[in-house]
Amino acid sequence: MITRAAVALEAGKPLVVMDVNLEGPKAGEVLIEVKATGLCHTDEFTRSGDDPEGAFPAILGHEGAGIVIEVGEGVTSLEVGDHVIPLYTPECRECEYCLNPKTNLCQKIRATQGAGVMPDGTTRFSMMDGTPILHYMGCSTFANHTVMPEIALAKVRKDAPFDKICYIGCGVTTGIGAVINTAKVEIGSTAIVFGLGGIGLNVVQGLRLAGADQIVGVDLNDSKVEMATKFGMTDFVNPNDVDGDLVEHLVNVTGGGADYTFDATGNVNVMRTALESAHKGWGESVIIGVAPAGAEISTRPFQLVTGRVWRGTAFGGASGRTDVPKIVDWYMDGKIEIDPMITHKLSLDEINEGFELMHQGKSIRAVVEF
Amino acid sequence: MITRAAVALEAGKPLVVMDVNLEGPKAGEVLIEVKATGLCHTDEFTRSGDDPEGAFPAILGHEGAGIVIEVGEGVTSLEVGDHVIPLYTPECRECEYCLNPKTNLCQKIRATQGAGVMPDGTTRFSMMDGTPILHYMGCSTFANHTVMPEIALAKVRKDAPFDKICYIGCGVTTGIGAVINTAKVEIGSTAIVFGLGGIGLNVVQGLRLAGADQIVGVDLNDSKVEMATKFGMTDFVNPNDVDGDLVEHLVNVTGGGADYTFDATGNVNVMRTALESAHKGWGESVIIGVAPAGAEISTRPFQLVTGRVWRGTAFGGASGRTDVPKIVDWYMDGKIEIDPMITHKLSLDEINEGFELMHQGKSIRAVVEF
Repeated sequence: MITRAAVALEAGKPLVVMDVNLEGPKAGEVLIEVKATGLCHTDEFTRSGDDPEGAFPAILGHEGAGIVIEVGEGVTSLEVGDHVIPLYTPECRECEYCLNPKTNLCQKIRATQGAGVMPDGTTRFSMMDGTPILHYMGCSTFANHTVMPEIALAKVRKDAPFDKICYIGCGVTTGIGAVINTAKVEIGSTAIVFGLGGIGLNVVQGLRLAGADQIVGVDLNDSKVEMATKFGMTDFVNPNDVDGDLVEHLVNVTGGGADYTFDATGNVNVMRTALESAHKGWGESVIIGVAPAGAEISTRPFQLVTGRVWRGTAFGGASGRTDVPKIVDWYMDGKIEIDPMITHKLSLDEINEGFELMHQGKSIRAVVEF
Repeated sequence: MITRAAVALEAGKPLVVMDVNLEGPKAGEVLIEVKATGLCHTDEFTRSGDDPEGAFPAILGHEGAGIVIEVGEGVTSLEVGDHVIPLYTPECRECEYCLNPKTNLCQKIRATQGAGVMPDGTTRFSMMDGTPILHYMGCSTFANHTVMPEIALAKVRKDAPFDKICYIGCGVTTGIGAVINTAKVEIGSTAIVFGLGGIGLNVVQGLRLAGADQIVGVDLNDSKVEMATKFGMTDFVNPNDVDGDLVEHLVNVTGGGADYTFDATGNVNVMRTALESAHKGWGESVIIGVAPAGAEISTRPFQLVTGRVWRGTAFGGASGRTDVPKIVDWYMDGKIEIDPMITHKLSLDEINEGFELMHQGKSIRAVVEF
């Protein structure tokens, strides 16, 4: 079939919207019609050329929602008409990782996904001249239709709006999951969230959901206060307004350091501040942000010997097929909010404007609707 | 009273054995006769002058065992004749830290202990000319008698030999506790232990006790193999014998990385290797060793984002008054071994020879018997 897609032809260039060929699903694969997709910093990381593993031409996008159009041979868990959210972290439920409750990093199709191809080693997308186009994070949601492995699709309820739940495919689950699955925050905890963007706000609402007593937000931009407060932030610290040492200030604000701290900035210096402002004896710090290639985190080992714990999280520690449908329910039940974070709606033809909004810090989430 | 002690008069000089004055116990304090004390690297760290917080003159030593001779006013948990092990990490059972099951770092007398004085701000030891002598780690076991706070003494069974159980006051509990309390190693786990000295060997036997399937020891000295094997090591790696990358080699040896890794070297480069040879998705690395002042650990945050956890431990996460008596039982019941690690016995007058043995790598533990 022919479908419409925004193609990243080369690093650093705007996406080009064009017709592309899409082959039908092979065994174990599913064809879906993408109804909406969010624009995430990770897409921009690759588009811009900063991603050392980025390969082109490719169809980016990994935060979508859509409808099953056709299922390949052997597909048993999905049928035509099902509503689904693509998963860049699949859940095969049979690999060593899926069978270990300590991790969500399913490895079943890791190698081919990293190489931009389907599990059989080929792409389903191609240019009109036949040139293959690579898949991206196993999703490629910047296309009106895409083909995905069955194990990388979460089946969700049909009454949930695509233009909101697409955000659960990455940002919402990453932020809330970091709190619930990775840190396992207890009721009454204190917490600090560094960076109040599209991930950080979801950490904040995850903390509210988990019953945290104090939720301190840290951001260089005072304009984040209103939205973050709406999502549950109880205290705000702008490092530019702090005289002296930021760690010492945050330790004071939280009465000895926070039980849990979260980096949602990707800045390795902030990651250190996050660790060191965790409480002596038991504070845990979770790295969510993606750091630039080659950047390293550092601290004195004394910080760990005196009881702090340093962790990281990917996709919020969520096992997508199991956890994503639950988060969609939480949204539909009003336990979490998404609508205020979807600040911009675009058509596919306007997708490059979405990246401009991201750079200008004007959007929390821009969503493309097909 | 007058007692005999090895006094550290100034940084970098040998200890001087001399008679010193010792005042009786004040309220909440206990006078004990020290029957045996181990010599630990931490004592040497301070004696040598490397410890930036070291203060002199002081009576070092923190790994002892003895008998209660006199109790001060208000002491209720101990009586004359009780056998005790001094605790450099006390357990008051009422501070914020003691009441939090995630930590063992009782803070009740932290400030005075760090300053080398008893909780009332004064020392019990003095020179014959009246010059005060500082306490060390709240213990000062390099003296035939010492005064300690009640909350810093673990009451143990009377049939246990002092010259062996003194080692439970630091090395044994630190190594075994790192496995049991901090890492909480499960039966069937794989593990790597970096450094097969007095702490590392106890990590090895802690892993055996916890039912680990594979216990890989890493040390630059092949002569450690015999003893470590006796304590439960299943595989040995000498980094000097590895061609290429040590992390990659260790990942291969453990079939993908170890479930748990332990640094017992104090070397920050080894700490990084330990983290990075932990298994993707769920591997946890525990820092036990004390690093030189100012040294920092580093890694790429990707190591944590892909599921590794970085922790540290002090006194093996043990709550001393509660846990140390149990470890003494384990020794008496034959669940753990101590005897082969006590490689040298000295008199107090020979204590400086003990530090020489340590430097020469000839001793695992030298013990002074009074």
